[in-house]
Amino acid sequence: MMSLLTETIKKIEFIDQSWLEKAEARQLSLTKPPKSLGRLEEIANRLCAIQEKLTPLVENRRIIICAADHGVCAENISPYPSAVTAQMVINFLSGGAAINAFAKIANAKLSVVDIGVKSAIPALEKIYENSSNVLHRRRIADGTRNFTKEPAMSEREMFAAIEVGIELALESKRNGETLLGLGEMGIGNTTTASAICAALTRLAPEETTGRGTGADDEMLTRKIETVRCALAVTQPDSGDPLDVLRKIGGFEIACLVGVCVGAASEKIAIVTDGFITTAAAALAVKLCPPIAGYIFASHLSAEKGHHALLELIDQKPLFDLEMRLGEGTGSALAMNIIAASVAAFCEMATFEKAGISENKQRAAR
Amino acid sequence: MMSLLTETIKKIEFIDQSWLEKAEARQLSLTKPPKSLGRLEEIANRLCAIQEKLTPLVENRRIIICAADHGVCAENISPYPSAVTAQMVINFLSGGAAINAFAKIANAKLSVVDIGVKSAIPALEKIYENSSNVLHRRRIADGTRNFTKEPAMSEREMFAAIEVGIELALESKRNGETLLGLGEMGIGNTTTASAICAALTRLAPEETTGRGTGADDEMLTRKIETVRCALAVTQPDSGDPLDVLRKIGGFEIACLVGVCVGAASEKIAIVTDGFITTAAAALAVKLCPPIAGYIFASHLSAEKGHHALLELIDQKPLFDLEMRLGEGTGSALAMNIIAASVAAFCEMATFEKAGISENKQRAAR
Repeated sequence: MMSLLTETIKKIEFIDQSWLEKAEARQLSLTKPPKSLGRLEEIANRLCAIQEKLTPLVENRRIIICAADHGVCAENISPYPSAVTAQMVINFLSGGAAINAFAKIANAKLSVVDIGVKSAIPALEKIYENSSNVLHRRRIADGTRNFTKEPAMSEREMFAAIEVGIELALESKRNGETLLGLGEMGIGNTTTASAICAALTRLAPEETTGRGTGADDEMLTRKIETVRCALAVTQPDSGDPLDVLRKIGGFEIACLVGVCVGAASEKIAIVTDGFITTAAAALAVKLCPPIAGYIFASHLSAEKGHHALLELIDQKPLFDLEMRLGEGTGSALAMNIIAASVAAFCEMATFEKAGISENKQRAAR
Repeated sequence: MMSLLTETIKKIEFIDQSWLEKAEARQLSLTKPPKSLGRLEEIANRLCAIQEKLTPLVENRRIIICAADHGVCAENISPYPSAVTAQMVINFLSGGAAINAFAKIANAKLSVVDIGVKSAIPALEKIYENSSNVLHRRRIADGTRNFTKEPAMSEREMFAAIEVGIELALESKRNGETLLGLGEMGIGNTTTASAICAALTRLAPEETTGRGTGADDEMLTRKIETVRCALAVTQPDSGDPLDVLRKIGGFEIACLVGVCVGAASEKIAIVTDGFITTAAAALAVKLCPPIAGYIFASHLSAEKGHHALLELIDQKPLFDLEMRLGEGTGSALAMNIIAASVAAFCEMATFEKAGISENKQRAAR
């Protein structure tokens, strides 16, 4: 049952430092003061290392939105009912969500994965026949169980969800995709991610739990208590990411763990969105540390625990626009920044070719 | 002689708060938790106020790179010789610079303005015949004078450079451009911008002067002393932006002041790049405070005085990627972020239309 995950992890290698050095040498030859593109130079260099070439590609982009429901919603921890998860999946497919607008500008395809949405997603041919948005019907169950009472999912369910994610990444490889943006939808899943964050970082629940889609003070207090209760009841092992995932995770998070594992195994760059996708990335990195080299963090979300998770995977976000929507909106926004870093790297003239005078300080040395 | 500037300033109005409110009402109807797109919502709302409609446009984008040389280079304050200004202008026109790669991704046209480059720019038909990059030959003089000895330019020269900028913005209006990115090129111009920053903010030169394209410690000390000397010799009046501009400015900065004034007069949104373009924006805002409402700050540059200038115009940058290249690279990178904010605003479904359940807290009220 563990075989696809284990096999895939075996294939994952640390990114190759020697490509970082080769890329840096080219950066220094381009017509700009050394390091003047700042973090964009690091991005391009790392893409060279991931793809093992000095002409990295960022075309064929895809955003994968994994959607699932959460049994913990029974604790009244979200201002929205679980029914909204399915409603938003339909909104994604019919093109009315923020991520649809953003994906167009990012020049990215959109895949929506029903990995455990509670309400059935109806046949949607009419809604999205003119759309390139794809629905993957891979539901594991009608949402997770309430992890304040019992583990969120069984081992079998967890591995099944992870495997769907791995398969999606392998599909990306076959389709020549070079940049995978993570996205998610699941009413209640900031509570889930807060519990995972507390388990992985050992921070107190009040340090990892925020307002999500807009909890008021009373609901926030209840969310914090819910996280505390979940940890006490299920006793996840902080050192064992699969134990954490199974006991206090969600199906969309498990699927995203699989996407990270599969993408890294195929040397495809991954872009995290906000708090929930970063929880998945952190679990993947805990499971297999070399995966960190394949991850680019898009933004710092307004959600409280996000910073701690980014530190855990040793990634600095590219921007902080106080977003807290999820759906992959941050991933999409990062794609053009990443593309710009690569375009400069690949298309700029060298000092020599452009006949531009050298830095006097450097020349004098 | 002052007439075009004075006339144009007279046309500038504060952006209309009532449009901000109308835009905010629409934001609340869209299928996302309230405020969950964070600062992107403010961007879209402000574009509605600038354009006075709820369907703001961000197409027809242009980046205007104003290029000029600086007499202060005689003080040995840059690691590059003045000749690089002209060499980089040629690089922009032949498509080999970072901004060429970025402008393509931003879907923006590029205008390069020779407003006072010391070396002659040769006839370039062969170089850029297949390119959409345009050179505007509007040189005022062969660079400014050395402002450690005398004022950088005469009144006549200053107004002429400002008027070129105004004319460029009026041309944008005629061409239906909706988003103008500021860019600049001018060896030595971080020293100029540092002097302007010190004059406008009354901060000490060591607080406003950074390493620019890569000054070493010795050169940085010399830059700081150069700024101190310029202020002592020319005695600019901090309360009079035109006195500051004339005495310690640069032609590209004067031209960019004109672009800001002209764009605001025609209700066109402006995007600042780094330290130098923000110095121009700050002078424009000092000249006419309502201009601030038309400005979006793209990034926080690595250059030391940038933060103080952004505070002066009351703008928060959208991102900080430790860039310090200029050319309009930050402006270009911001354009797709701004476009995403508008796309979400214009294209998203409303809760009502998508049949999505309301926030329980809100519904209960």
